[in-house]
Amino acid sequence: MKQYNQCNERIIAELKRTVGEKNVITAKDLLIPYSQDEVTDERYHHLPEAAVFPQNREQVAEVVKLANKENIPVTPRGAGTGLAAGAVPLYGGIVLSLEKMNRILEVNHEHLYMIVEPGVRTQDVQKAAADAGLLYAGDPSSGDNCLIGGNIATNAGGNKAVKYGTTRQQVYAIEVVTPTGEITELGGLLNKSTSGYSLEQLIIGSEGTLGIITQATIKLVPLKQYKLDLLAVFSDAEAAIATVYKLIKAGVDPTSLEYMDNEAINVCARYLKEAYPYQQAGNYLIITIETDTQEELDTKAGRIDEICNANGAVAVLVPDAKKIWAARRAFGDANREECYIHSPEDMVVPVRQLPGAMKQFMQICRNHQAVGRVVAHAGDGNVHLTIMQGDIAAEDWPVRIDEIVNDLLAFTYSIGGRMSGEHGVGSKRKKWMHKFADPIQLKMMQAIKAALDPNGILNPGTIFDLE
Amino acid sequence: MKQYNQCNERIIAELKRTVGEKNVITAKDLLIPYSQDEVTDERYHHLPEAAVFPQNREQVAEVVKLANKENIPVTPRGAGTGLAAGAVPLYGGIVLSLEKMNRILEVNHEHLYMIVEPGVRTQDVQKAAADAGLLYAGDPSSGDNCLIGGNIATNAGGNKAVKYGTTRQQVYAIEVVTPTGEITELGGLLNKSTSGYSLEQLIIGSEGTLGIITQATIKLVPLKQYKLDLLAVFSDAEAAIATVYKLIKAGVDPTSLEYMDNEAINVCARYLKEAYPYQQAGNYLIITIETDTQEELDTKAGRIDEICNANGAVAVLVPDAKKIWAARRAFGDANREECYIHSPEDMVVPVRQLPGAMKQFMQICRNHQAVGRVVAHAGDGNVHLTIMQGDIAAEDWPVRIDEIVNDLLAFTYSIGGRMSGEHGVGSKRKKWMHKFADPIQLKMMQAIKAALDPNGILNPGTIFDLE
Repeated sequence: MKQYNQCNERIIAELKRTVGEKNVITAKDLLIPYSQDEVTDERYHHLPEAAVFPQNREQVAEVVKLANKENIPVTPRGAGTGLAAGAVPLYGGIVLSLEKMNRILEVNHEHLYMIVEPGVRTQDVQKAAADAGLLYAGDPSSGDNCLIGGNIATNAGGNKAVKYGTTRQQVYAIEVVTPTGEITELGGLLNKSTSGYSLEQLIIGSEGTLGIITQATIKLVPLKQYKLDLLAVFSDAEAAIATVYKLIKAGVDPTSLEYMDNEAINVCARYLKEAYPYQQAGNYLIITIETDTQEELDTKAGRIDEICNANGAVAVLVPDAKKIWAARRAFGDANREECYIHSPEDMVVPVRQLPGAMKQFMQICRNHQAVGRVVAHAGDGNVHLTIMQGDIAAEDWPVRIDEIVNDLLAFTYSIGGRMSGEHGVGSKRKKWMHKFADPIQLKMMQAIKAALDPNGILNPGTIFDLE
Repeated sequence: MKQYNQCNERIIAELKRTVGEKNVITAKDLLIPYSQDEVTDERYHHLPEAAVFPQNREQVAEVVKLANKENIPVTPRGAGTGLAAGAVPLYGGIVLSLEKMNRILEVNHEHLYMIVEPGVRTQDVQKAAADAGLLYAGDPSSGDNCLIGGNIATNAGGNKAVKYGTTRQQVYAIEVVTPTGEITELGGLLNKSTSGYSLEQLIIGSEGTLGIITQATIKLVPLKQYKLDLLAVFSDAEAAIATVYKLIKAGVDPTSLEYMDNEAINVCARYLKEAYPYQQAGNYLIITIETDTQEELDTKAGRIDEICNANGAVAVLVPDAKKIWAARRAFGDANREECYIHSPEDMVVPVRQLPGAMKQFMQICRNHQAVGRVVAHAGDGNVHLTIMQGDIAAEDWPVRIDEIVNDLLAFTYSIGGRMSGEHGVGSKRKKWMHKFADPIQLKMMQAIKAALDPNGILNPGTIFDLE
């Protein structure tokens, strides 16, 4: 295991010279927020020795160069809304927060792109696009808190990925500071290119291990003029899930196709102090369609109604969209408030295998006498199964949750799925990468990491252990 | 410069044991076709010492392992229709042709994917999809000759990329033999994943330098029911090009948006022995639209007619689609037949910069007293400018063409473009990579190559020189 040096006073002084005195934190109480993301399990918390807040690319590069020279790990961080402990400084050292690089530099509504710094809230990106009559199609449920740089680093998915793809598909170019402190812009305002390796595609989703994103040029798309949210309620959870693929196949082309099971609806209702339709025994599909014409909207809505009814829906209704989406987005916070000890999992499976997979996931929970609640980006086969503490004693939790997750992932990989659709591996799921990922691929990843980050400075211990 | 060993008799015998006697060629006259692709410039031809034709992944892996052990370079090859000398064995050694791994293994019309071996012709992939009532959206102009493996290795674009994206977007998973001879499947039948580095995205478009594709799972999409090809003719080439972005912005969402200049139309007409509308002075935009309803088709066709007429079209007509597309596809072959000494270039620029870029490209040709002919995947900003020998003496050609391309690329990079939209860098454009690519990125690519191919065995000298 690689050993790092401590941030001593000389290095702290150097950091202060680089980013300014007020942009360096070293007091332990102020560092606590930078010791964790939203993972509540203390095995995945670790204090840094310093947190720094650079204000431009040059400062980021200087910090990284210093870290290489002094053998100090650097953990880049967005808003800390991650669910995989990917922004946790496992080996101490420096947390490099991008939160002060938070300007929208250009919204180009003529040519459909936006240039942003990494610390812009995703919500503000969405709003700036909407103000220009356009759509930024990235839409993670944590959108009102998370930062666009973190979205790119984790290849965030979200509620519109079923139509528009994940963050990977929303990016023209990223400027990065490399693990050795060089500044370079990868990609371009181009529709295509075969002019060398696609480095931007490699770095998107690499969770801050191969580069620190200091600027991004992202795609905007024309807003559709007609939009409708539908809520299909099923008393049978399996029937709801079985309907997902039928909707996809019917060519309804939904912008969103989300699932909430009854447990999920109820925890969100309690958290938001709201009542929801069929709350006692319903399971939801939330289906959004957007079209260019009213006629197309009507046609698709009719088709959805028909398919859901034919597959056992209790009701298909036009809900209070704001209220329904508030519940969907509140799922993470609601679970966290209700019970600090819990584990949000994020498996992704082939969409056509979703019904069988969901049944098996719930069976695994029952096998372990565990309480699972589910929301899912169902149209993408991405299942957010949150395991609650339930009757498990706090001291037993680390062992018990690992047993449960082991079974969930063993099954997931057996059907061609992966451990994370969008949350990432982080340091939380690293042990599962070492267990379940193809060892050939793991070695390739480790070799790439060692090639681009020879000193192992950038976010070490995230995704996998260094070779 | 790395030195390799020769394929001596012992190694040839080992190759024959591995893939079978009849699947190894060593006679010089039989090897000549494997010394080049469609690049006619002899600087980019080189004879291998052997060509092998494995029939399965295990044989591919064995050959690569042997090559590592014996320090012999391996150059993977599809149909040899490349335009960048990416499948040319620059250092001799073994050409590994995938042409005998040519089975379609599964067409799944229920779940919209196809599993293919790399040696299937792209045309046959398209046909198998169409036979199942579906579309494979990759559509390079060389489709009737090229192989799907080569399309993936070069991230081929083609005539439908403006709507469906390049080959990168058509791939769920690729099985590869790594540069050290391991077999692994990258990606999966998943809509999303953040479970480690996106190795499949790295390897797609890496031109056979990071892995040999031995199988691919590709996406199929539902066929649109209504389709129309329109031909907009402009007497002014600049007016034609200026109309491209207006069509994109109008939300017409074309499946194809191709440009042919008058020189291009005429060379294709001569080659095909056909007459074409407005052949004497016309420049073409070929616009294809596909929709779910007749009404939408009519609306979009009306909009296209309106925009083209408002921007100076001489005529907007419904052409003999087969005949027009035959011309567009014949461009490469027609130039080659007319004059063996020529150079097809493949710059890509931001679409909005296409009018200025095209003017500048033609000016550079005039500056060098060179004859340039243009077709373009205009909707993607991808310009196929072919420089013909014209009055240049054969012995002057190597120097003169390099001067011309140097100027074309200096300008292209100055506006954020890249040297290749889809043909790739190959060994033909390698020197320009070393000159025009960001040196930081070039170093990153070289480091990745060295990490995954420590012996520098796989297609060395393609894209860049080994470090």
